[in-house]
Amino acid sequence: MNRRITQGKQSLLFCDAPYIVSAASVAGSKEAEGPLGKLFDITNEDDLFGAQTWEEAESTMQKEACVLALGKARVEAEDIRYLFGGDLLRQGIATSMGVEGLQIPMFGLYGACSTSGEALALAAMSAAAGYGKYMLAVTSSHFGSAEKEFRFPLGYANQRPLSAHWTVTGSGAFLVAAADTELPRRAAADTATENFAPRRAAGDTVKEETAPHGAEGGIEKEKAAPRMSHVRIAGVTVGKIVDYGLKDSQNMGACMAPAAMDTIVQNFEDTGYTEADYDRIITGDLGCIGQSILFDLVRGKGYDIRRKHLDCGMTVFDRERQDTHAGGSGCGCAAVTLASFILPRIESGEWKRVLFVPTGALLSTVSFNEGASVPGIAHGIILEHREPDEEKGE
Amino acid sequence: MNRRITQGKQSLLFCDAPYIVSAASVAGSKEAEGPLGKLFDITNEDDLFGAQTWEEAESTMQKEACVLALGKARVEAEDIRYLFGGDLLRQGIATSMGVEGLQIPMFGLYGACSTSGEALALAAMSAAAGYGKYMLAVTSSHFGSAEKEFRFPLGYANQRPLSAHWTVTGSGAFLVAAADTELPRRAAADTATENFAPRRAAGDTVKEETAPHGAEGGIEKEKAAPRMSHVRIAGVTVGKIVDYGLKDSQNMGACMAPAAMDTIVQNFEDTGYTEADYDRIITGDLGCIGQSILFDLVRGKGYDIRRKHLDCGMTVFDRERQDTHAGGSGCGCAAVTLASFILPRIESGEWKRVLFVPTGALLSTVSFNEGASVPGIAHGIILEHREPDEEKGE
Repeated sequence: MNRRITQGKQSLLFCDAPYIVSAASVAGSKEAEGPLGKLFDITNEDDLFGAQTWEEAESTMQKEACVLALGKARVEAEDIRYLFGGDLLRQGIATSMGVEGLQIPMFGLYGACSTSGEALALAAMSAAAGYGKYMLAVTSSHFGSAEKEFRFPLGYANQRPLSAHWTVTGSGAFLVAAADTELPRRAAADTATENFAPRRAAGDTVKEETAPHGAEGGIEKEKAAPRMSHVRIAGVTVGKIVDYGLKDSQNMGACMAPAAMDTIVQNFEDTGYTEADYDRIITGDLGCIGQSILFDLVRGKGYDIRRKHLDCGMTVFDRERQDTHAGGSGCGCAAVTLASFILPRIESGEWKRVLFVPTGALLSTVSFNEGASVPGIAHGIILEHREPDEEKGE
Repeated sequence: MNRRITQGKQSLLFCDAPYIVSAASVAGSKEAEGPLGKLFDITNEDDLFGAQTWEEAESTMQKEACVLALGKARVEAEDIRYLFGGDLLRQGIATSMGVEGLQIPMFGLYGACSTSGEALALAAMSAAAGYGKYMLAVTSSHFGSAEKEFRFPLGYANQRPLSAHWTVTGSGAFLVAAADTELPRRAAADTATENFAPRRAAGDTVKEETAPHGAEGGIEKEKAAPRMSHVRIAGVTVGKIVDYGLKDSQNMGACMAPAAMDTIVQNFEDTGYTEADYDRIITGDLGCIGQSILFDLVRGKGYDIRRKHLDCGMTVFDRERQDTHAGGSGCGCAAVTLASFILPRIESGEWKRVLFVPTGALLSTVSFNEGASVPGIAHGIILEHREPDEEKGE
């Protein structure tokens, strides 16, 4: 309590920063054909994932992502203190139905497409405070359920403007552990790195020789001491609602860009970092239109993040080849990109410090039909590569 | 980090327990005619609260409740570190639009009618962890917007079975402060108690002599040293999703009773308390049908809470006179009852320890139409009366 944690107006820098010790991604068929296709743990040619409805399919993805993230780290569901989860659907039903079977005490969240940031922030805050060894953060979205929720059922074959986003069918789950947690013993030498490796080999079929839940390493490998991962959540910048008065729900990039700018600039002001201190600044789903607005807005505040910026919505799909217009979006977009593409690079040390900023557009069909504007919100998560030696030196 | 906080499987008992330092309630016309009518801070004969739509009206209530809770404690919005809020509407739009103007970094939540418990739990967890001096928790519901969201627009004059609940039009906001917070100086002798007093005198008009935001005490009164309130959040029991397979969305009491039982019994097991240790065990909105099921389920676990139990849904309306069938419900039901009826009794010492257990039914029109069951969730908040002397002795 006496050690300084709060930082500036909206940020926390943790004294005993928690770690992301494993992550898992489950994605749909279009995502499997995209640039990250080979990096996902599970993809399915049938976007129903064996279920009867899009909503059930989304719940199935969430459950699979959670079970996989747990399995990679060899942690049981009953060892998870609290789960933080959410999705885009009304009354967060994909999450309720998805995580019900895990029987983990849970906090349901809604932050539109920023929910993965919200869930990671609360999971990290809870782990850093000593409220439990393990926390689980999970979010999802599904193209079929989101089109039905926000626009039209797929059967209507609705046309979309070029500024529109394509909701990612996918779910990402993240196991967060307190700094002093001893991970379970497992059967591989450098185990932690494999917690971020995709479950499957390149190709569509799951490797038969892998252990249940996709843990790598056969039993014949030497038993190794448990090791913490190299990815710690150093801090968070909790976003506030930013409303520039835009009302076009088919141009969510423009609606969310001001919130992304606000959180990024606030993170700089709170922490003293600038774009030079981050290897990457990665927004959730601004898409190409939102990105250019973000660059302009951030420049107006005296910063230039162009050379450091990535956007998950522009990373997850090949815009030209896949006809996804402005880019990907949805609670699953930033989540699967973080799990499959960003975390392995931090784990390996390729990136030393990343500001991960999922962005959300706060609207419903009711608010839109009643003429309300579409404000945005974005939460910043500071992810750092950390060598075990660095920990000891602290 | 080294002091023991986690307790049993799902509970936390805080080392430096935070306090609820003020609360405010805003309610509709039917609630004003109910048993708690004179205890609310603001009621309005026109349930639109000056807005054009039910959704806007709900947002207005949330904003008013927040501003009032801040005003009672003489705390500015910019001094609030984080806001935790939610409502029943799809994509939590009442909260987004309601709290936008406050510009407080925020976490959007969804836990159906249990959201006030979820918000208080996270606010207390954040304050106890040292993540900021002040946190704000707010929830709301509105009969008009909820009927439209879950059933039919009011204009359809839909008939309701006797097992149905009546969604409370109301919003409650709670200012949570870390244990070591020095409250702002203010102009009354025993100030904290007044933070829980209703803003208005008996009757419909707001007292003209009160300060802005309803703070009591004129400037001619003697300046007194700041004092902490007597209501502390000693701990929380975070609920998990409990599904007994019920599918009747018009009998939510039955759907939620198993979750209430689960959280109450878990609280007993985690903390070692039983019904004898609580002056009251107060559920959110089980109504009369849910209450009788709860009694049976709890008795099956070896406890008897009948003499200690209250239900906010049965407290907020007069069932016979107001024709509200099973009782009140909604995110606002437990919130306004806590703010207006429960907290003043804890503040005064009439009740020394209360287990507050808001209950939620996890469904949407989509999940209902697709034949899914209606699971429940309930979060337990341990509220204790605390004299200043007791604090020093610790």
